[in-house]
Amino acid sequence: MGLHEDMVALAERAVAASRVLADLSARRKNAILLAWADALEARRDVLKQANSRDVEAAKAAGMAAALVDRLTLTDSRIAAMAKGLRDVAGLKDPVGRVLSRTVRPNGLEIRKVRVPIGVIAILYESRPNVTADAAGLCFKAGNAVILRGGKEALQSNQAIVETLRAGGKKKGLPEHAVQLVETTDREAVRELVQLEGKVDLAIPRGGESLIRAVVEQARVPVIKHYKGVCHTYVDATADLGMALRICENAKCQRPGVCNAMETLLVHREVAEKFLPMLALRLGRQLKVELRGDEAARALAPAMKAAIEDDWYAEYLDLILAVRVVPSVEAAIAHINKYGSNHSDSIVTQSPEAGKRFTREVNSAVVYVNASTRFTDGGEFGLGAEIGISTDKLHARGPMGLEELTTYKYIVRGNGQIRE
Amino acid sequence: MGLHEDMVALAERAVAASRVLADLSARRKNAILLAWADALEARRDVLKQANSRDVEAAKAAGMAAALVDRLTLTDSRIAAMAKGLRDVAGLKDPVGRVLSRTVRPNGLEIRKVRVPIGVIAILYESRPNVTADAAGLCFKAGNAVILRGGKEALQSNQAIVETLRAGGKKKGLPEHAVQLVETTDREAVRELVQLEGKVDLAIPRGGESLIRAVVEQARVPVIKHYKGVCHTYVDATADLGMALRICENAKCQRPGVCNAMETLLVHREVAEKFLPMLALRLGRQLKVELRGDEAARALAPAMKAAIEDDWYAEYLDLILAVRVVPSVEAAIAHINKYGSNHSDSIVTQSPEAGKRFTREVNSAVVYVNASTRFTDGGEFGLGAEIGISTDKLHARGPMGLEELTTYKYIVRGNGQIRE
Repeated sequence: MGLHEDMVALAERAVAASRVLADLSARRKNAILLAWADALEARRDVLKQANSRDVEAAKAAGMAAALVDRLTLTDSRIAAMAKGLRDVAGLKDPVGRVLSRTVRPNGLEIRKVRVPIGVIAILYESRPNVTADAAGLCFKAGNAVILRGGKEALQSNQAIVETLRAGGKKKGLPEHAVQLVETTDREAVRELVQLEGKVDLAIPRGGESLIRAVVEQARVPVIKHYKGVCHTYVDATADLGMALRICENAKCQRPGVCNAMETLLVHREVAEKFLPMLALRLGRQLKVELRGDEAARALAPAMKAAIEDDWYAEYLDLILAVRVVPSVEAAIAHINKYGSNHSDSIVTQSPEAGKRFTREVNSAVVYVNASTRFTDGGEFGLGAEIGISTDKLHARGPMGLEELTTYKYIVRGNGQIRE
Repeated sequence: MGLHEDMVALAERAVAASRVLADLSARRKNAILLAWADALEARRDVLKQANSRDVEAAKAAGMAAALVDRLTLTDSRIAAMAKGLRDVAGLKDPVGRVLSRTVRPNGLEIRKVRVPIGVIAILYESRPNVTADAAGLCFKAGNAVILRGGKEALQSNQAIVETLRAGGKKKGLPEHAVQLVETTDREAVRELVQLEGKVDLAIPRGGESLIRAVVEQARVPVIKHYKGVCHTYVDATADLGMALRICENAKCQRPGVCNAMETLLVHREVAEKFLPMLALRLGRQLKVELRGDEAARALAPAMKAAIEDDWYAEYLDLILAVRVVPSVEAAIAHINKYGSNHSDSIVTQSPEAGKRFTREVNSAVVYVNASTRFTDGGEFGLGAEIGISTDKLHARGPMGLEELTTYKYIVRGNGQIRE
């Protein structure tokens, strides 16, 4: 069989499994999730052995140390995968919830009921823990999942998926509820995301180039975020001490993640006071490389000069672009032009400025007086997240279990016909 | 400028308008909708003149009579467009509604608030009334709309859009809130649906080939239904009188629409009694061409023989495919294999069969003891619909105003940082 036929067969097995999954009770699903967690811990040594083969091959191929670290499974990472699955078992099952119910004048009862999406393809890169996390969330929401990880992690992923399938089997896990794409052919992704009617949703997770490729190739719906170019805007009325604490947190607490701040905008009325505070704390003490526009550098000369590209940059590092703006309108315009519609914050004591900012900034999450780092399923109280969407359709912001479901209308009558 | 640059400029004007539209009050939007309705009626003769040029060109080009009829604007159709806009003015504005509010243990207040999607492209064929209907719904939900109708209706559409723009201007309609693509170059659609970040959603309405082309070309999200292959399944326990009335309504009341029945499935235990009733009423009296499988033809010999293609067919005509099935499971399997995930109905007195059918049939709307013809925004109480979705993401089934919105998270704090 060719690649196309292989992917069709894989997807059709997933469709068949999804029909069974849609009817599993929450109790049954939770028992399977707990069995998965136990199985991962029980087979810890098998997982680490498989992983060490991936890690050695990666090192031999000259993979950068930071990527090798992401690829490596340790006891604590295996424990974290198991804990993640137990946490998902504890979440409320969204399936079956009645979202609305109306009785029409003709007596028809129309219920809108939450149901699984069906078959979800997750396309990701080298972190093998995504395999268990994504399988857990998709499964709890009643979906069959097709996992396609990075080729560097193939043996680790195979071991994890085998563990889940073996661990779930005795608790009634449908065969093919969790499947891994085992070919490393890059065309497999293209084939998968064109299987309209079989694959219901594709979620790419990883670098921007992976995600762009998926969007260009896809005929099935895709939910994603390309990148997180998050802003903090320090308004003329800001409490500057609060602003500095928020900036420090948003930039430095974990610079390599998508909800970290990449650009700081400062109102010109407070720039003279705030920028030297920033240059001292973030620049001097915390070793953040500051790249300012002309006005910012006039007030904090230690900054490097920012160029146009800096306003678009997702550094994922201890680098910060800094710009002085004349107004909240200018800050909003900058964010809507250069930003990524992810998470942006205003620090202000003015309710009007806060209102205007939250209304006009065209992002998934807009903050008043808080760090952008809170954009996260756990922090939002969703329990866990499959990712963050900067799209506007279906899901926006952190995506939890509910966002892995859809609805159907169930209409009951007693012989109604349309006049 | 080339086509690409033209479409980018058009979309950027729409983006600018969408920023203003997002903040318009319901009162202002309703005043504009009423002004639109008045303007259409006041300029009735101008509209009919422009339309008559389209109609004459279409006739000269040999357009089929049924299509010429769909293209033609009459006084009553103009009145219906005006009434449609007034009805939309009377609908509740979905924008600004708080969908959820939580206060986290750290004091952060997280609100999920309904907001417009932004810029919506509507791609349709020759019916000019879609121009006013789609503009009204997109506008009421706070979106800028880019309309691309069939080239046969271009002069009619231009006249309608000019009327809306002139009529709305004095009530504060933002310029470029409603724009028509005026080139007849077919590549314009491809350009539009690839403008990620500028066009937020594309809704194609029309024949399957138009819709497939849009899906293949699109990088922006698309919501659509390809076709409506709707089923009625008459269960072993059905009230056969009710079943016959439902079949007559679903097939004959308006055969040319997407929620009309195309295939009838009959449980073998009642086929001997029901099929002769069907052959008499639908076949003999109502002149429906019946195409049966072997088992059906054995019981109602006047039927033609169905071939495999009949199970996939959307006739949109007085033709009905008929199949005898051994069980509710077989009916469900047939529908999930051959259907279009649109609307399907079971006629049964068995609560178990009804439950199983509604749970397992993978369609946007599933009915028990009612005609599939009810799948419609008006019948569902949504007030009006922009279309019907057989997709599972974002919107499923009839799409009203709410489905033309998204949400954003607005998070308020007093200096919270992430630990």
